[in-house]
Formats: sequence, C-alpha cells, structure tokens
Amino acid sequence: MLVVMKKTATKEQIQKVLDVIENLGLTGHPIPGAQRTAIGITGNKGSLDPNLLGSLEGVLEAIAVSKPFKQVSREWKSEDTVVEVGGVKIGGDALVLIAGPCAVESYEQCSEIARAVKKSGANLLRGGAFKPRTSPYSFQGLGEEGLKILARVREEVGIPVVTEALDPDGVDLLETYADMIQIGARNMQNFSLLKRAGRSKLPVLLKRGMSATIDELLLAAEYIVSEGNKNVVLCERGVRTFSDHTRNTLDLSCIPAVKELSHLPIISDPSHGTGRREQVLAMSRASVASGADGVIVEVHNKPENALSDGHQAILPEMFQDLVDEMRALAPVMRRTFADRLVTAKHHE
Amino acid sequence: MLVVMKKTATKEQIQKVLDVIENLGLTGHPIPGAQRTAIGITGNKGSLDPNLLGSLEGVLEAIAVSKPFKQVSREWKSEDTVVEVGGVKIGGDALVLIAGPCAVESYEQCSEIARAVKKSGANLLRGGAFKPRTSPYSFQGLGEEGLKILARVREEVGIPVVTEALDPDGVDLLETYADMIQIGARNMQNFSLLKRAGRSKLPVLLKRGMSATIDELLLAAEYIVSEGNKNVVLCERGVRTFSDHTRNTLDLSCIPAVKELSHLPIISDPSHGTGRREQVLAMSRASVASGADGVIVEVHNKPENALSDGHQAILPEMFQDLVDEMRALAPVMRRTFADRLVTAKHHE
Amino acid sequence: MLVVMKKTATKEQIQKVLDVIENLGLTGHPIPGAQRTAIGITGNKGSLDPNLLGSLEGVLEAIAVSKPFKQVSREWKSEDTVVEVGGVKIGGDALVLIAGPCAVESYEQCSEIARAVKKSGANLLRGGAFKPRTSPYSFQGLGEEGLKILARVREEVGIPVVTEALDPDGVDLLETYADMIQIGARNMQNFSLLKRAGRSKLPVLLKRGMSATIDELLLAAEYIVSEGNKNVVLCERGVRTFSDHTRNTLDLSCIPAVKELSHLPIISDPSHGTGRREQVLAMSRASVASGADGVIVEVHNKPENALSDGHQAILPEMFQDLVDEMRALAPVMRRTFADRLVTAKHHE
Amino acid sequence: MLVVMKKTATKEQIQKVLDVIENLGLTGHPIPGAQRTAIGITGNKGSLDPNLLGSLEGVLEAIAVSKPFKQVSREWKSEDTVVEVGGVKIGGDALVLIAGPCAVESYEQCSEIARAVKKSGANLLRGGAFKPRTSPYSFQGLGEEGLKILARVREEVGIPVVTEALDPDGVDLLETYADMIQIGARNMQNFSLLKRAGRSKLPVLLKRGMSATIDELLLAAEYIVSEGNKNVVLCERGVRTFSDHTRNTLDLSCIPAVKELSHLPIISDPSHGTGRREQVLAMSRASVASGADGVIVEVHNKPENALSDGHQAILPEMFQDLVDEMRALAPVMRRTFADRLVTAKHHE
Repeated sequence: MLVVMKKTATKEQIQKVLDVIENLGLTGHPIPGAQRTAIGITGNKGSLDPNLLGSLEGVLEAIAVSKPFKQVSREWKSEDTVVEVGGVKIGGDALVLIAGPCAVESYEQCSEIARAVKKSGANLLRGGAFKPRTSPYSFQGLGEEGLKILARVREEVGIPVVTEALDPDGVDLLETYADMIQIGARNMQNFSLLKRAGRSKLPVLLKRGMSATIDELLLAAEYIVSEGNKNVVLCERGVRTFSDHTRNTLDLSCIPAVKELSHLPIISDPSHGTGRREQVLAMSRASVASGADGVIVEVHNKPENALSDGHQAILPEMFQDLVDEMRALAPVMRRTFADRLVTAKHHE
Repeated sequence: MLVVMKKTATKEQIQKVLDVIENLGLTGHPIPGAQRTAIGITGNKGSLDPNLLGSLEGVLEAIAVSKPFKQVSREWKSEDTVVEVGGVKIGGDALVLIAGPCAVESYEQCSEIARAVKKSGANLLRGGAFKPRTSPYSFQGLGEEGLKILARVREEVGIPVVTEALDPDGVDLLETYADMIQIGARNMQNFSLLKRAGRSKLPVLLKRGMSATIDELLLAAEYIVSEGNKNVVLCERGVRTFSDHTRNTLDLSCIPAVKELSHLPIISDPSHGTGRREQVLAMSRASVASGADGVIVEVHNKPENALSDGHQAILPEMFQDLVDEMRALAPVMRRTFADRLVTAKHHE
Repeated sequence: MLVVMKKTATKEQIQKVLDVIENLGLTGHPIPGAQRTAIGITGNKGSLDPNLLGSLEGVLEAIAVSKPFKQVSREWKSEDTVVEVGGVKIGGDALVLIAGPCAVESYEQCSEIARAVKKSGANLLRGGAFKPRTSPYSFQGLGEEGLKILARVREEVGIPVVTEALDPDGVDLLETYADMIQIGARNMQNFSLLKRAGRSKLPVLLKRGMSATIDELLLAAEYIVSEGNKNVVLCERGVRTFSDHTRNTLDLSCIPAVKELSHLPIISDPSHGTGRREQVLAMSRASVASGADGVIVEVHNKPENALSDGHQAILPEMFQDLVDEMRALAPVMRRTFADRLVTAKHHE
Repeated sequence: MLVVMKKTATKEQIQKVLDVIENLGLTGHPIPGAQRTAIGITGNKGSLDPNLLGSLEGVLEAIAVSKPFKQVSREWKSEDTVVEVGGVKIGGDALVLIAGPCAVESYEQCSEIARAVKKSGANLLRGGAFKPRTSPYSFQGLGEEGLKILARVREEVGIPVVTEALDPDGVDLLETYADMIQIGARNMQNFSLLKRAGRSKLPVLLKRGMSATIDELLLAAEYIVSEGNKNVVLCERGVRTFSDHTRNTLDLSCIPAVKELSHLPIISDPSHGTGRREQVLAMSRASVASGADGVIVEVHNKPENALSDGHQAILPEMFQDLVDEMRALAPVMRRTFADRLVTAKHHE
C-alpha cells in the first residue's frame, strides 16, 4: 500500500501516519518528493483496508497495490483448473456447450429440448427450477417438481444438469437432483449462499453480478473456495451500462482479464449478455474467440410460449448452427470440440 | 402494450401476432401507418412480458406501457405511507435521522456512539451485526453477539435499532433483538430474503441495488408488500457508474421520481452513496432538499480504528453539525425536525 | 508516481525501470516488500504518463499520485475565483440564477421569456442560437439571427446573455453579441474550441461531458485557462448511466468534489441533468444544498410548441416558485440572493 | 409514435392531445384500454420529438417507435456499403487491418513502423498528427509536419493513410495529405466537424463516442451522409462504464446491432477499447468473430518511448501474430484476408 500525503501535510501528520502503520505491525517507508511526501508500506498480507489510512489527517489518498484475492489467483496456482461436472471437463482443451431452456416448464418441454441439444452436441443441460424474477407476479419456476423433471431427463437423455439455487435450502435440494449449482448474477454477493455452496460437493457455476468488477467476482469465488469447494466455473453474462441496444453489455474483455488473474475456468452467457436472440450466435463466436472455455445459451422449442425470457432463446435449429460454428472455430483457438467423446464417457 | 411491426411485415405475420394476443385473452388493435403497422393491446393486467411478442416473426419491437408494480404504486394508494419504527415515524412531517457505526464492534463502542448521536438528535440507531463484505477475509461482523449489544444499548439509551439481515435465518434473529430489518444493496434481489421479510412483523429498510432501476427497486418492495408486510422504507445509496470521484454515484433524482410513482417513504444514505466523509454533510443537505424523508449516516468515534468503512464515517462532532443543518433546512422543506418529541414518545 | 513490480520481477527488470526513470530526469526510490517491490518516483512535474512505465517488463502497475491539472487547482490558488459576467458575479456570496429558453425561436418568444424570468429574479438569460442536435433533421437554431435577437433583448430587458458556441467561428460571433460563451457537454473535449475560448475576452461556461470524470472536466478548464482566459465557470449537467428514470443522472457529489479540488465556480443544470420538468425544482434545491454557486434552467412560455427540449422546460410560473425556493434556501447555505441589486448594477 | 395517457386523464386532456397531433399534420388513433387510453400516431416522417407530446397534461409517456436515421439505415439501402480507401475496400469480402503508431513522432519512427506492419499484412496505416489529449500539457502531435511525414511514408511504403482531424481546418489539410479522415470519439458529436467531413471527397472513419448509443452513432453518420459524403466507416472503440479492468469497455454486441440497422461498414479498435496491450489480440479475434469488417490497432516499435498511449501499443512481432490469427479466422467467418492483393492493386 502507498499513502500519499497532502502538499500541506505537517511533519507531525506524517509521523502520525507512520505511527499508525507501526501499530498495525507493518513498516512505513517515507518517500519525500518535490511536491509532497508518499509513504510506502510493506509487510501487509492483503487484509489492510486502504481507507483506514486514508482517513488520517494530512493524507490525500491511500492506494492498494496488492490484489485482495488469494486461492483463486494465478499467483496461488499457476496452472489452469479443470472442473469436472458429471464427466464433462470445463477448462480443459475442449470447448464446452451448455444449453437448455430458461425455465423448466414441463417434462415434455424439458425432455424434447434436452434431446435436441444433446443430439446437436451440447455437453450439459441447463434449466431453471427456481427462477429469480424481477416481479413477484412473474412465473417463479416449478421448484422441486422442476428439479425432479431435470433429474429424470438427465437419466433418460444422458446429459449432466446445471440449475440455479436461490438460497441455502435450494443447495440442499440440488445436491439430490443436479450435477452443478448455478449462482445467478443477482446472488453473486449473497454471501450466505456462497458459503453454503462452498461446503457442497457439487461444482459451482458463478455468474458475474450486473455491476460487479472483476475483483468482486474473484472475491465471490474466493468465498466458495475458502470454504473448501475448489470446483468453481466463472461466467460473464453482461453488465449494466447506458448502452441500450442490448439488455446488458457483454463485457468480453473480462475473459482474458480473468484468465490472466485467475486459474479458474470462465465461460460466457450471450443469451443474458445480450437479451436478444439475433445476437446469440455472433456473441457466442466472439466469446470463444476472446478465450472463453465455453458458452451457456438458452434454447427453446417454442419461444413464443416460453414462460420466461422467450425473446432471447434460440431455436434448436439455430443451436445446431451454433454448434457447427463452434466446431469450425475450435481449431483456430487450438481447442477441441469433444461433444461425442464426452457424453460417451458420461455413460460408462 | 404496443407491438410495432417491421416495414416488411406481411399480412400473415400481422395476423399471427393478433392471434397470439387473442390466445392470451387480450385484445389487439391494429394501427396501420404510412411506414408500418403497430398493434395496441388492451386488457393486460400487467403480467405480460413484452419480450414474448417481440420474438414473433415480423415484429420490430414490443413496448410495455404500464408499470409492472401494483401495491407500492401511487395509483394503488395516493396518500403517503408513514412507517412507524419503535415509535419513530418515517414518511410523515418530520425528517428522520438514522445514525450509528457501520459495524457493531463492542458494547463500549456501540454504547458511546449511540449516546452521542441520540444526544445530538438522531431518531434511530444503525449498526451492523452481520456484515456483507466483498472479501471473505474482511471482518464479517459479531453476529448474534452484535445483536445482543444493540438490544442492550437500545434499552439503556432509549433509541430504536435498525440492522441488516443477510438471509432468512437472520430475520428470525432480528425479530428478537431489533426494531427494523435492513436489506442491503447486494441483497435487493435476494428474493428468498425479501419474501421472508414480507412475512415479518418488523418494518423493512430496503436499499436500492448498485445497478437497480427504480422499477426494479419498487418491484423488490412489491415482493415484501405482496407477502403482507406494508411497512417498507426505501433507501437511495448510490449506484455504479464510470464516475470515479466518489465510491458510488448518489442518484438523488431517484427521490422525486420514487415520490411520484410510489406512496412509500424514501431516505438517502450519503455515507455509502459517496464513500467519502468529506461529502456526507453536503449530500445529506442535498438529499433532504430533493425531498428525502430523512438520511442514514455512519458515525464512528474512532474512524481510524473502525473495522469497516472507517473512511466514510463522520465523527460525533460532525454529526452534531449535520443535525444543526437539518434543523435549519427542515422549515424550507416545510417539514419538522422532531428529535426530542419522538424519542420522548419512545420512552413512555 | 508509484511503480509496482510483479512478484516474479527479476533484479534486472527492476534495474531497467530505475534506468528509465533516471533517463526521464526523475528519481526512483525502491521499496522492497515481503511480496513484491514497489518504486516511488519523485521530481515529476505532472507530465509523466503512468502508462509509459506500466509497459515495461516486470511491471504490474504504475499509479499516478499527483493530480494532472495545475492552474485550476486549489493548490495553485486557494481562494475562490469569482467570475463577472456583464456585472453579475458568479462564485461570490450570491447564488446566481440563469434562465431562458433552450433555443431562441423568435424575438417575441425570447423577449417575453426574458422579461418574465428577469422579473422573477433571474440574473442571466440563456438561449441557444447554435443548437447541437443529435439528428441532422432537427431544428439547428437560428444562427447569427438568433444572436441578434439575444443582443436586442439584452438591451431592452437589461440582462446579460450566455449562449453556446459550437466551433471557433461561433466564438468570433459571440464576441460581438453575447456576454458569456457556453461550451456544451458534447464539446467538452473539442480542444480547438477550448483553445479559441481560452483566447477570448468573454467568460466561459464549461459544461461537463456526458461521460467525463472530474479530472477530465478540470483539464478541459485547464485548456482554457492555460491560454490566458481565467474566467471559467463549470457546470454539472448529468452523466450517462444505466439509470433510466431520468434522461441523464445528475451527479451532484461532483459539486463538493470540484469545490475541494478547484477554485473555479460551479453551477448545476437540472433541466438537462434530469430531462424532466417535474424534477427541475427538486433538483435545483438539491444542487444549491450541495454547494452549487447557482443553477441554469430552461424556461419556456409555451413548452408544447418549443422547437427543442420542450419537455424539460418549466413555465414562467414554476420559475417564480423556483426563485422563491432559492430565496428561502440561500440563508441556510449562508449565501445571499441578490437579484435586484445585481441587475440594478448592470444598468448603471 | 405512441402517446400513453395517465389513468386519471380526462376526456378533455385526451381531446387536447388529439388536437395537437392534428395541428402537426398527423393522425391520432385512440386505443381505449381497461386501465388507460393510448393514442397511436401515423403520418409521422421521423422528425417528431416524443417529448413534445410528453409534456401535455394527462400524458404519462410518449414513445417513439420509428428509428430517426434514414440514409444510413438498412431500410434505405439493404445491401452492404463498401468504402474504398486508396484502393483498399472496407466492408467487402476481405477483412481489413489498419495499423500504426498512436502519434506520428518522427519520419524514422513512422517509416519503420509502416514498413513492418505492411510487411506483416496491414492494409492501411494509421498515425495521428493532431492528437486530442486530455491535458493541455501532454504532447499534442506534430501537426502539418506530421501529415507531411505520413504522406512521404505512404509514397515510399505504398500504403494508404488514415489520420485524425480535430476541426474543419484540419479536414482542409487532410485533403492534401491523407486518404481517409478519422473523427475521434471525443468529436463524434462535433457537428461542425461532421458537416465539414460530409462535404469532403475523402472517406471518413467515424468512431463511436465514449457514451454514445447506437442511435447517436448512426445519427452522427447521418450528418456526414446527408451532406453528400456516402463513404463512412463506423468504429466501435469502447464505452465508459463502471468496469475497471480495462480503460474502456469494448461493446462488441454493437457490431451485429449496427449490421442489422445499417448498411455501413463497421470495424473495431481493441487498442483504445481495452487500453491494454495484453488484450489486443484476444479482442481483435473477438471483434472479427462478432462480425466486424476489420480492426484498427496501435503498433509501436519502442512503446516505452512512445509520446502517447505506449501501454496499449503492440510490438511489430505481436502484430505479425495478430495477422496470422486473422488469416486463420477469416475462413471461419467466410471472409478473405487479401493483404497482398490489395496492396498490389494500390500500386498499379
């Protein structure tokens, strides 16, 4: 950390800062300059709040120079983490495709979509049983009934399942019925939920919050990992900005930024990231080209009847096009696209 | 709702849209224009997703024209709601001041600050026992021990207490120890928590999420109200923008906007809204001048030792200045400033 | 400036950074730490680009610690600057009200509005002759004809005039007809225009750009001041964010922030800052309560016929209410409200 | 346009709105609903300001349903526009690479970089002679001297040149020395400059403003096209958001959105869009994968000595890698990569 003193700071104020630093068990290094004095701090293990020193008299600014996350950082573990979900590896050589409806609406709907996306090449099935809806009057999902449908479809179709938990009780249920716990954007800083997921045996798909920085995303992952669950996959799903041609702004530069800072896998969600069906293929390509380990997309067989987010779901035929594009793109990114192999392995 | 067709839309596509509208039990009114056809929809009770029709072929856009919230709207109830918290009225004639430390750190700290702010004129004491911290390595609050301290200080000092709950279990505890449940910005769309708070007897202080629109804030309140708890106070606490001279951007135009749309009281949090002690007085004045029913500020007796957010806490002396300014500003806003009266009433 | 080295930085990389610093004529101070080495730099006069050193091998980050603006800073000049415009002082004890139509549409319109706002207590008349319109098909202003109308109204009504210039040629014309040059938000970083205004005898009203930081606003002012024109008044007029209940988000915390960093006066524009007539009074109060030296508002006698921005213009009756509120608020802010005196002085 | 009346609107208020619509020469179509009345408007040629009707009594909201741009729209011209710059076609089958230094610093620097990027496969040379710098104390470019260097390098190396104009006088100079006029992000709504560029024979590269919507970008292009210059290439270069891991947020979903709305070519600038050298390759790939017609990147032979933006410039070796990646990606996007052919053609 660096403390920058005001030009008008007195010797006494500078000494006070040095004393406070010493009381914290750290070492201060004054750097007198032409215009002002700065004080470098060493011995800090990462838990010092820059604002603590920033509030002392005579201080202009206190600047943190170390990143606050630990176990999720590349400095902690330099090689890429590969997360295994029901036999499917996320973060390895192979690109991963997760597809399915926004919400589980019925066995027929879920089964039909699951068969279609698996046939095209999806590795995992997505589908919400508990839906976080902006309005209390919107469809809230089928709940445990939806989880049972997912589990039945998983067995019949042979595809692992990822679905969202909204609270610690939901994690309990998912441990019975699902292969991976999704924590949605609205809950990225629901710390009770993060801690509960950190004590689960299931891997976690953690979505970036709508106004979360990369540091906050990685610290949310750190909550899970520090409880013992190392199997976290991150997901960029668009952030809130003034830009109004899409529902959210898909911040793809987050992908290489996270790859540099962390060893965790990261995928992209162009369905929520744009909120527009017409953009899903283009932004899926862009996601993989930027280095994402895969994409998660919403697919619906009858979008005009969908109980939520029908406008952003693509049809099974479009999903086939997307798979074909991913297959063409994979070698350019020096990756494989192992749909057949992986699902075969799952059925051993 | 209005459906705007593309210029190139065929008669068949227009008819398909009309059929879908009819199937939904609604009525479509085609408006043929020089350039394109639009279709007005009537009979909609507010639950229709604009994106449902937006995904049909030939449709350019579907535009919602009714607001989606109901019980919290001015159209539902035109007179202002007044929420009573331990004898203190929020949303009535009197401006309300809520003050206290970010986190409860010890009985001594909490008691000393509570006495100071009450003496100056605070109506309610704030203080966190469960702290939602970005990093798992930061101080997480004293938990139930903190709640016990708050309850003891409340009795000794004679000032009602508002404190944050992070999950449904936390609400259970608050019902034993506190007078008002705070739901923080990160949990504004934690729907499990909102529903639990909606079934509580305690009033709720609901903070706007960092990237929440006004509609989303009011719909989050609607979750609470629709479960039966009518006593909700809203709080503007700054949003995430590019603007970097404050930690968040306090969006004060939200105050008159909410007052127009809703009957619920709304206060402002200039401590979190700016993240800078130097701005708290100026933005407290601005909040009240914009029409807020009160402010909530962080006060600490030793900010340089605070376990969280010390940089934005004001000292008890500055809080006294703030109270004096509020007292001067109240008549300009045709409001009273009823510190003595209210706290007297609380001790009857 | 502080250069933070990566944990993995070699001795050679650290030495290379020190050499580059020395070649720049500056002094580097290594601060070896437990985790990594940082290098403090002294001797820097403010012109060093942090990114220059940030691009060297082994460097994690280079952090600027001095503010880049000079003549506009409080450190350069500690007392408040007072800018005089046709006898009206901006930035002194008295609050200043600038009012008038968005665009000059005709002599009758301009004259009628000018008489009304002056009668109520406005100090300056605003009105656009050159209008920066998003669409080339929108009304672009009356041009020099509009300036002539403004000059005639100024003489007849006895009120100084501020109006916008879009390019250096426009400044030439304004020097003939107006009392103050407005540089609009879209042109805040039109450096050719800033430099030309910096060589003018007229004072300048510089509006903050829609996505400008405070540093960028002050550096734009520095462009004007460094060319010799010290008479610059800043103006907060709302920034672009995701928040959609107003056209822009009025960032009022900018007011105390600028007051702390700079000696220049700053006013607020709640008409553009909110884009909604219903909010103008509330946000005018909030602006002054936050410490603004005055407000600039759009007033129109027939908003429904206005050729631009009619929705945000208030009626002359509402402006009278606004003046009354400012008069009540001024003493709370320890300011005067000198409408009569000032305009009398202008006519000596 | 659609006018939505308040629930409480009276018959008289509805009739008033209908009268105003009729007076504007348009036709109003009332749609009485269960909760409120809406009024559809036809006959509107696109010049009607929604806010005009929004300000009438009893009106809740006026919603524009037609896009305001014309000649740049797909509805005006359905086939893609191809812009030719010194023999290089932008917007055709071939991907286009524009590369060069941020600023022209000397003949040697410019010549060396130009030779390197041309050899690798760049189609056009970029380099600034007039630099829009945030601070007046930063290097402002070599001016006309820089243009002369660019013209000399163009002849010697055989590569067309794009460079920025800051004002109408700058356009005059560019017409002597350059092949394409760049209008930078800060000047996207400098309407005097847009109009002057619209009267030029040179094609224009128009960058999106830092907080511009797609509509505003297309309307800025409309300013140029409506003056007669049809040769406009758009450029996404990142927008301002809260997200702080990159200097700007590259909004790639803008590419397919613009392609849908407009026939104009659009390229991407990952150097400014991210501000970080490490991201340029990843985001160049993502740009092309999202459908961009090419990329513009900053290349410098000695970034640590660059007079501006050295931290985001890539080295010539990295540019060679970028070219190789583009060549691999082109067929996946069903595009060619015609570096040799095009530059050969330029020398005919």
